[in-house]
Amino acid sequence: MSPYTWYNHLKGCVMMKIGFIGGGIMGLPMALNLKKGGYDVTLYNRTYEKIKPYEDQIQVVKTLDELVKDKDIIFTIVGYPSEVEALYFELFKKVKPGAILVDMTTSSPKLAKRLYLEGKKHQLKLLDSPVTGGDKGAINGTLSIMVGGDETAFNLVLPLLKTMGKTITYMGESSNGQTMKLANQIVIASNIVGIAEAITFAKDHHLDLNKALDVINGGSAQSWQAQNNGPKMVLGDYKPGFYIKHFIKDLRLAIDEMGTTLPNLVQVEALYTKLNQMDLGTQAIIEAYIQH
Amino acid sequence: MSPYTWYNHLKGCVMMKIGFIGGGIMGLPMALNLKKGGYDVTLYNRTYEKIKPYEDQIQVVKTLDELVKDKDIIFTIVGYPSEVEALYFELFKKVKPGAILVDMTTSSPKLAKRLYLEGKKHQLKLLDSPVTGGDKGAINGTLSIMVGGDETAFNLVLPLLKTMGKTITYMGESSNGQTMKLANQIVIASNIVGIAEAITFAKDHHLDLNKALDVINGGSAQSWQAQNNGPKMVLGDYKPGFYIKHFIKDLRLAIDEMGTTLPNLVQVEALYTKLNQMDLGTQAIIEAYIQH
Repeated sequence: MSPYTWYNHLKGCVMMKIGFIGGGIMGLPMALNLKKGGYDVTLYNRTYEKIKPYEDQIQVVKTLDELVKDKDIIFTIVGYPSEVEALYFELFKKVKPGAILVDMTTSSPKLAKRLYLEGKKHQLKLLDSPVTGGDKGAINGTLSIMVGGDETAFNLVLPLLKTMGKTITYMGESSNGQTMKLANQIVIASNIVGIAEAITFAKDHHLDLNKALDVINGGSAQSWQAQNNGPKMVLGDYKPGFYIKHFIKDLRLAIDEMGTTLPNLVQVEALYTKLNQMDLGTQAIIEAYIQH
Repeated sequence: MSPYTWYNHLKGCVMMKIGFIGGGIMGLPMALNLKKGGYDVTLYNRTYEKIKPYEDQIQVVKTLDELVKDKDIIFTIVGYPSEVEALYFELFKKVKPGAILVDMTTSSPKLAKRLYLEGKKHQLKLLDSPVTGGDKGAINGTLSIMVGGDETAFNLVLPLLKTMGKTITYMGESSNGQTMKLANQIVIASNIVGIAEAITFAKDHHLDLNKALDVINGGSAQSWQAQNNGPKMVLGDYKPGFYIKHFIKDLRLAIDEMGTTLPNLVQVEALYTKLNQMDLGTQAIIEAYIQH
């Protein structure tokens, strides 16, 4: 990097005012990592009380109007596509032209494309930029982030994304980030159910379940899910790293967007829906196999 | 290790005569690793021509009678439970009392238990000791090996197993090795189908499939299968690391032994059976999703 480029880069970093909307399990640590990366970040959450305890670590505001004021880049990570849609139509009215809006919610690819086109009319650049890696990844700044939208906008926010994630991949045109995320969830869907079925099988045959997990993770059955959610299934620890209600949302979006029929995806969505434990973590699918 | 223990250990290594039955994709490299570990190994394969080319690397014999002669420990890795059963009833007639027989085929837990009890009558100690890690693991000596049977026999063969595998786990009583292996295959079954479904989804939406695999393996969807079989699915490389015919055998054994119903396992077995491509590698399941 030449001294001149470096100067402009630094200047960019110093001048940019960043807004962050969404202080949940994922959003809060992500905003904090952005702050730790040296950026001027302001955090807003619909329920102010949830972020108030962090005001010594990051600037927090009570209203959306305070948040959007003068911001060059705004990150959003909320719950559902309906919330993304409502939020973005608010933002279109309030954000200054030229700003970049980066939605990190896992949401609908069709909606991402529609908002991208709508944003264009307001001279706003939208990126769809969902993440994976769970709460751990959000806390440690090791998320995997997949981005769709204009490449120039992507290159501008890339240094900021690097404070939150380890692997940042530009997937091409608007909506491709969301499509990629759904493909990712399709892998996890089958994977986590397979782990639950294997633990159930091992339990039915009175195997040592901790040894069983060691074997699974020592060979060609190894996976991030088996390493991280396997032990929680064995312990019956269903504290959400990732909520079932959000996972079901993702799986339904994927079913809604699928071309070729994907029978395993359809079956896993049905298993989670039948379990009906929306506020537990995804590992609680093991409960679907426990004879009560 | 005291000098005395070391002397006995060395003496044990030098004196022990090892037989190895089965020179397939897995068996051949496993026998070669045992040989490289300093053991006196003789290899036998039903079809002699397949192992003849390796006679400069390992001692090979043409008949089962030559193989069993004077052996202290015999490893077996053949195709199907029916072959295991036929082979072991031959071995019971021919092997000298006191020997240890280690079956590394993935086979039926029920059969393992039955052969273990039958072997006892002939003063033979049987271990069921299937492996995972694929052809790569067999070649590199990094297999995961799970063992059921008497713990004293396990401790005796442990140094030999260490030449073939990285993670060796004693699972308890006879048949527990096979049960563990089936649990492991249950994980892989759902995992590999999930990867095929995700690649299909990504392809239907015109994503860059290599980037998609990078994203999958960079976060919480990561798995050995996605890293090793994902790229083969994308390339259409169906060369068998692990044959579909052997995988279907494993899945049917698991279905046969399951207590609680495991719907994903049942569905994956049906998908592989319907695909009907027995001599391709397991990654060829992606073909089930390609519109011809």
